[in-house]
Parts: sequence; structure tokens; C-alpha cells
Amino acid sequence: MPQSTVKLASGHSMPLVGFGLWKVPAESAADTVYNAIKVGYRLFDGAHDYANEKEAGQGINRAIDEGLVKREDIFVTTKLWNNFHRKEHALQMAKAQNDAWGLGYIDLYLIHFPVALKYVDPKDIRYPGWWLDKDHKEIELDKVPTQESWQALEEVVDAGIAKSIGISNAQAQLLYDISTYARHPISSLQIEHHPYLVQPELIELAKDLSIIVTAYSSFGPQSFLELPPAFRERAKDTPLLWDVEPVKKATERTGKTPAQVLLRWATQRDIAVIPKSNNVNRLQQNLEVSDFDLTKEEIEAIAKLDKGLRFNDPGFYLHKPLRIFA
Amino acid sequence: MPQSTVKLASGHSMPLVGFGLWKVPAESAADTVYNAIKVGYRLFDGAHDYANEKEAGQGINRAIDEGLVKREDIFVTTKLWNNFHRKEHALQMAKAQNDAWGLGYIDLYLIHFPVALKYVDPKDIRYPGWWLDKDHKEIELDKVPTQESWQALEEVVDAGIAKSIGISNAQAQLLYDISTYARHPISSLQIEHHPYLVQPELIELAKDLSIIVTAYSSFGPQSFLELPPAFRERAKDTPLLWDVEPVKKATERTGKTPAQVLLRWATQRDIAVIPKSNNVNRLQQNLEVSDFDLTKEEIEAIAKLDKGLRFNDPGFYLHKPLRIFA
Repeated sequence: MPQSTVKLASGHSMPLVGFGLWKVPAESAADTVYNAIKVGYRLFDGAHDYANEKEAGQGINRAIDEGLVKREDIFVTTKLWNNFHRKEHALQMAKAQNDAWGLGYIDLYLIHFPVALKYVDPKDIRYPGWWLDKDHKEIELDKVPTQESWQALEEVVDAGIAKSIGISNAQAQLLYDISTYARHPISSLQIEHHPYLVQPELIELAKDLSIIVTAYSSFGPQSFLELPPAFRERAKDTPLLWDVEPVKKATERTGKTPAQVLLRWATQRDIAVIPKSNNVNRLQQNLEVSDFDLTKEEIEAIAKLDKGLRFNDPGFYLHKPLRIFA
Repeated sequence: MPQSTVKLASGHSMPLVGFGLWKVPAESAADTVYNAIKVGYRLFDGAHDYANEKEAGQGINRAIDEGLVKREDIFVTTKLWNNFHRKEHALQMAKAQNDAWGLGYIDLYLIHFPVALKYVDPKDIRYPGWWLDKDHKEIELDKVPTQESWQALEEVVDAGIAKSIGISNAQAQLLYDISTYARHPISSLQIEHHPYLVQPELIELAKDLSIIVTAYSSFGPQSFLELPPAFRERAKDTPLLWDVEPVKKATERTGKTPAQVLLRWATQRDIAVIPKSNNVNRLQQNLEVSDFDLTKEEIEAIAKLDKGLRFNDPGFYLHKPLRIFA
């Protein structure tokens, strides 16, 4: 199945629709990924923090071994976690993550959060994420200039480990600042983006800088209902995007599902999406979002739902990152 | 009159209440400042962009010459404008601005916006601000790393031109990033802060980093009604803060004016304020905001008015800065 792609500033192409590996359990990740390839997915969006890179890589390798796809048909995004922002650790981790995937190279390597936490040896982190162990022992912030981490990512490109680099969860000013000293371009910015959080100025800035935006949590509140209380709290009084008028109207006119409408709302503006589903029908549907168009009016009506409702606030983590898990 | 002060990270003290020079016409600035000193003001918040530094300095010097105050009683804040972010230009401008004030040194020198515009010789800027001349000829963005500008400000301190340095209109991530490489501390962060835009996480981050916050536009929508249409538009459907219930209640209990309540709401949390008034009574009243306290409940009730309503969006200017003046 041909995929809609966009050209990154690095010169490489990236599919506009991918499969997000956040919250995919390690034990089922290999099968999930293998099946997603069968359905037609070519981009997989992972992260060290998702704790399923090795298994996702196994699923891809199985599909390659069986001749379903070639390595170059697949696009793997993964991300540097916060404890490894110092140059030497970032280089180490990029190598280790590349080994975990076992695919020879990473297509796109992102700084996961512009929030440096103190270094901890990966084998001493019992529970990946913002804390050290199951008792939520706090990991302190570290003072690592973003420029140091960015230069590490550039060396990851120089070493042939990643083809393209970028950043996730960056605010406008930091994104622009990186662009002032970047030797390799910022190919992609991954951010929370849905009709309740449109961030038009950040998206316009990315466009000005030739950075492709990847949207996460395209379905809004739905993505957050299974997270810690502080996130659920924000999601609980907000109508599901399935149920709001402009989405319902576009659904009726096009005969598509609400999920398809929400994804097309992004991809039609060249914003990549990375939905996830455990249901094969929905997996398939989420991928079929290039064969119809929303009208300009529909796109605008959906954008008007914007209320700056952010479930994942990048500025938040710089201040007592672990309070949310208390 | 004794003034409430806060200690900056640089070790110097800063008054908690100052006089803001934004929109004070150059022709009346000397008198305005001189009269403000008579009323009791000791901090003056200026900027190259306000186009009244020389005149404000004349007003201060008149008061010094007449023995009303000594130089060390006065605290002058001023700001580096966006066209001068490259190191050599920043150093030049700091010297020129210091000469304009004519007071020997600047107390606090801030990066006005973390938005670098291309250099223009100051004498060729007919109309200070975001554009080049009265026809709003656009000045393009420049790619100057924030670190370069920050290091220039550090040299301004080394040269004895400024005692303390800081930044205005910075987002959380850029602020934190500067703190990772700062050789001289970030003493102050000046931001829009009023009950409609509380920014609790940015303020907590500043506190974590020992940065004193200065609030501008403490009265919210009022400050913006005389600005270009894009600003007025946002202000027009929002009730004035004078008229909202939690402010009215605190006004009734304390017998203070709404302006005093709004200023105290900030200063009681060690946030400095820089109101402006052309009315001598109000000038006096705005200064008298240390002799009463709001209750914890009143402070919280006012903070609950927060709706993320930003009249001056720092991220905005990175993208086509001049569209707002069209």
C-alpha cells in the first residue's frame, strides 16, 4: 500500500501516518508491530522510555525476514531519555538503543523532553520514566545546556546511527534557539496536538523553520484517561472529541470514523500522526486517512475547538518533575 | 519612605514596587519621573524600546541634584532591544543606554525579548520597536543563539555597566536553559502576570532557580486597550479586573482600591510590580501596597480567575513578528 510521505529537512522522507508505541506492553510489542506492518504501517514511533524498543525491533525484523518489507521501507523514530542528556551519555544511549532495535540504523532520533535529569546507569533504573524505582524515588534535574544534547545528536548523525534528528515537547523559544546553532537541521518536532490544543503559532514557527510536526495524542482526552491522577483530572470534564459537533458533522459528511476525521485534520496540513490501537479494524482505519479530504471550513471549525487544554505540559517538568506521580 | 525590597541572586536589593516607563511620552518623562520620586518611587523600569531613557535619566538626575535622593537610593532597570542581540551590538547598546540614563550604572539589564531581529544601526530606526519606520517596513528575524546574548550581558556586568542581569518574556524551557550555562545568575524574569494569566509553573520554576519575578500588566486587560488592534481584540470581551468578584470582595474587606489589591496580590508573593499612572493620587496609592495583607483565601480566589489569557505572547514574535501591526 503506498504511503503518503513528507520530506524532512535532512532530505529523508517520512510517512505521514505511523504507529505509536507508547503504552504498548513489551510482552506483546513484537506481535503488535509485526501485525501493524501486515496492515500496512511503515513508521513506528518508539522511545527508550516506552521500554519496548527491543521487542518492537524483533517484530520489524520478523517482517523483514519473512520478506513482507525491506529495511528501507520502514521508518523508525526513537527518543533519548532525560537521564542521558550529557554528550557522552547521549552517544552511549543512541548506540544502545540502535542495538536494541537491531535494524542497523534509526531513521529519526529525538530529544524526548528538553528536561535534563541527573544521570543514572540504565541498569539501575528499575522503572523507566521520571522516577528511579517503584517507590517513585525522585531523580533530580541536571544542568545540561540543550546545545550540548543537540550536538550529541548531531554526532549520532555523523556516526551513521541516525539519519535525521529532532526534538519532542519543545516550546517555541527553545526550538528557535536550537535552530540558531544547529549544524544538522531539526527535522521534526513532536508535540501534543489535537483540536483542544492547536498551538497555531508553534506550528507556524515550525513551518517557518522547515520542521515537520508530528502530533501525539491526536484524539485528545482519550489518550490520558489511563495515566496518573493529575492527567486524568484534566481529561475528565472534557467531552470526548468523538462527541463534539464539528467532528460529528465531518464524520457524517465523509462517512469516515471520528478517529479518521481527527487524523485527517492533521495530515491534511502535513502534520504527521502516530495513533495506536489494539484493535485490527481500527488499526486499518487509522491508516486510511489519505483517501479523503476535509473542507477548509471543516478544518477551521475543528480548529476552533481550541481551548489551550494541555494534558502534557512541557514547562511543568522543569519544576519538581515528580510531583504529578505523588 | 522605606520601601519593601527583595534580594536578587546577584546579591543586590531591588524594590518590590516600581514605576513602569512603557508608554510614558519622552516629552513628559523627565517630569513624570521626577514627580514619581517625590511621591516615593525608587525603581524605574525602562527600555530602549520605550524611547524615553535619556529623559527618565534627566528626571532622576534632577532629583539627585536637588538632594531628594542619592544615586544608590534609585534602582534603574532597562532592557536590550531585539536588533542588538549579537555580542558586539549588545555591548555597544549597554554602553549607549547607560550614557543615556547618565547615572553611572544600570541596576538591572534585561534581554527584552528572546527574539533576535537583524541588526539595524540605531540611527536608522526611525520608529523604535518591531518595525523599521513609520510605514512598518519589516525587520527580519536573525539567528543569534540566546547564549551569545546572555554572555554579552555577563560582560556588561564585568565591565561595571550593570549590577544585575535578567530576561523578560522568556518561556520556561529557555529560562532553564540559560540557567545551565549562566556565569552570572539570572537575577530577574519579567513577565506578563495578572489574575487572568497566572503562569504558576513558570513562577515556581523561577523560584526554584532563585530568580525574582517582576510582573508587568498587573491590571490585565486595562494595559492593552491602547495598543494595536490584535491586542485590543483580545482585551475587549474580558471583564476589567476592577469588576470581578474576588477583587471586589478583597477591596471591600481591606478598604483598598482594586489597583492596590491587584498589586498586593503580586507583592505578597514576592513578585515585583511596575505600575504606571499619570494621576498623582493613583501614583501614591500604587506605592502603598505593603501596609496591608490579603488573606490566603483571597490570594487563591484571585488566582482562580486564571484563564491563560495572554495579551503579549512571547512565542508569537518568533513567527512573522510584524503581522500584529498590519
